[in-house]
Amino acid sequence: MSLLVTGSIGIDTVKTPFGMSESCIGGSAVHFSMSASFFTSVRFLGVVGDDCPFDLADVFKDREVILDGLEVRKGSKTFRWSGSYEGEMNEAKTDSVDLNVLAEDPPTVPESYKDSEYVFLANTAPSLQIQLLEQISSPTFVAADTMNLWITTEVDALKDLLDRIDMLVLNEGEAKLLTGQHNLMTATQDIIAMGPDVVIVKKGEYGSMMCNKDGDCFILPAFPTAVVIDATGAGDSFAGAMMGYLAQANKVDVTSLRSAIAYGTVASSFTIGDFSIHGIKAVDKADVEERLDTLRKATQF
Amino acid sequence: MSLLVTGSIGIDTVKTPFGMSESCIGGSAVHFSMSASFFTSVRFLGVVGDDCPFDLADVFKDREVILDGLEVRKGSKTFRWSGSYEGEMNEAKTDSVDLNVLAEDPPTVPESYKDSEYVFLANTAPSLQIQLLEQISSPTFVAADTMNLWITTEVDALKDLLDRIDMLVLNEGEAKLLTGQHNLMTATQDIIAMGPDVVIVKKGEYGSMMCNKDGDCFILPAFPTAVVIDATGAGDSFAGAMMGYLAQANKVDVTSLRSAIAYGTVASSFTIGDFSIHGIKAVDKADVEERLDTLRKATQF
Repeated sequence: MSLLVTGSIGIDTVKTPFGMSESCIGGSAVHFSMSASFFTSVRFLGVVGDDCPFDLADVFKDREVILDGLEVRKGSKTFRWSGSYEGEMNEAKTDSVDLNVLAEDPPTVPESYKDSEYVFLANTAPSLQIQLLEQISSPTFVAADTMNLWITTEVDALKDLLDRIDMLVLNEGEAKLLTGQHNLMTATQDIIAMGPDVVIVKKGEYGSMMCNKDGDCFILPAFPTAVVIDATGAGDSFAGAMMGYLAQANKVDVTSLRSAIAYGTVASSFTIGDFSIHGIKAVDKADVEERLDTLRKATQF
Repeated sequence: MSLLVTGSIGIDTVKTPFGMSESCIGGSAVHFSMSASFFTSVRFLGVVGDDCPFDLADVFKDREVILDGLEVRKGSKTFRWSGSYEGEMNEAKTDSVDLNVLAEDPPTVPESYKDSEYVFLANTAPSLQIQLLEQISSPTFVAADTMNLWITTEVDALKDLLDRIDMLVLNEGEAKLLTGQHNLMTATQDIIAMGPDVVIVKKGEYGSMMCNKDGDCFILPAFPTAVVIDATGAGDSFAGAMMGYLAQANKVDVTSLRSAIAYGTVASSFTIGDFSIHGIKAVDKADVEERLDTLRKATQF
């Protein structure tokens, strides 16, 4: 089934204990698409300025990523982000951010994307996420990501969004902030009461948790790896493989969601294994399957 | 097979967001034995002062806990600990500690315990753990717990201990402190190089991880529960069920270790469900099996 992602394309500069990567490609839609395209063709929607140094067609060479929704906006500048990690890789410190084109109007959804069935709204202002979603005629399954900033500054729009989507993906701190709960089981139940049928909480190096409105619960540790070079994009890579798998399977039952989360876990383990998209770009579907098997063996009793 | 535990018996006062429990029974050997006795008879070794308000025979009523090694020392005072938890339940803040009898000579291992096959040395000074271990004639499998304090103040004795035991159980922060590593996979490999064949890292609400000298790795999330009243004793309860299972199975291969860790995870989820030992005391083996089944369902894909 068709899968649409809308999100950012960024020029990232990242410092970690393992080195520095200057002006490399990043952004939620990019990391998402690198992983999702292991499973299905991805309809990519995003905007860059005419200063963008990256050729997205080249970035996604050999991956099934449709770029009809990529807008290169004249006179605008591409989104830039600089961040650093110290010691623990769970959270980046943002050193600087230039929203640039992301602070302007969002890209328009092309006609050829309007019948998209699976939709992922990567993190941006919830009012924009709604605006983009309204351009899709009748999606089958809509998932969104969000962040602290919108919980603090646009909680009404966020709650409006939650009422319109099937699944929310957010990190642990965000889930606690949104609900005021310390316990994640309670927090996810509170979020489900706000609208989405499924909530997925990302816990960084501790893995992820899925709860749904029927009371099902799935918890999966992160893939065990000593190779953690740059955690940037891990969450989007996770979401990409997850949504890619669901769109390919065209099922969102509990069994499919579990497999989707496991694939997301594996994809993000490749993403964090190197700077930018180098880790995930260097592997193929067979590598993903092999690591999935290792993850299964490492978690079963 | 026979299982010996040596550890503390304490008079605990605990404050959590859910209330306060004053002068209740606690201590590593107590929490350990409550869980271990679901699986096998436990040889209990510990010392209290003659002020101890608890009748251990009553505490362990209906549980197979042998108290031949319980010493009530005249003129001494029982160990007391006061701690509190705020919001997150991962770590207690120690408000006060009176070592009392724990600062004196350790109890003597009775003749009837000297042939113990499975031995758990709960957290205390590593020099004392060695002294106790030397009194056991030829144990089959020895596991020990430790803590930050000994890593900082008695690291040589701790390394001597690591050379004599089969398995070390410690928490995440301790594993990182002991090795200077941020990555847990690397940290566990470094600890294995110090002596033990198996290392188990406890991650609180994020579950636990086991690595062994053959490169096997097992990661299990904590039991998903919204009922977390008092985390005191969780780690000892975890170790108790784990060692109890291994002693009963009389096997320490990877499959047995995985099952043992799963039982430990379940036992600790009961312990944290109420203050002191009330949570684990209120359940029976059937409850443990039921929750194990739930945990398996919540983690498999």
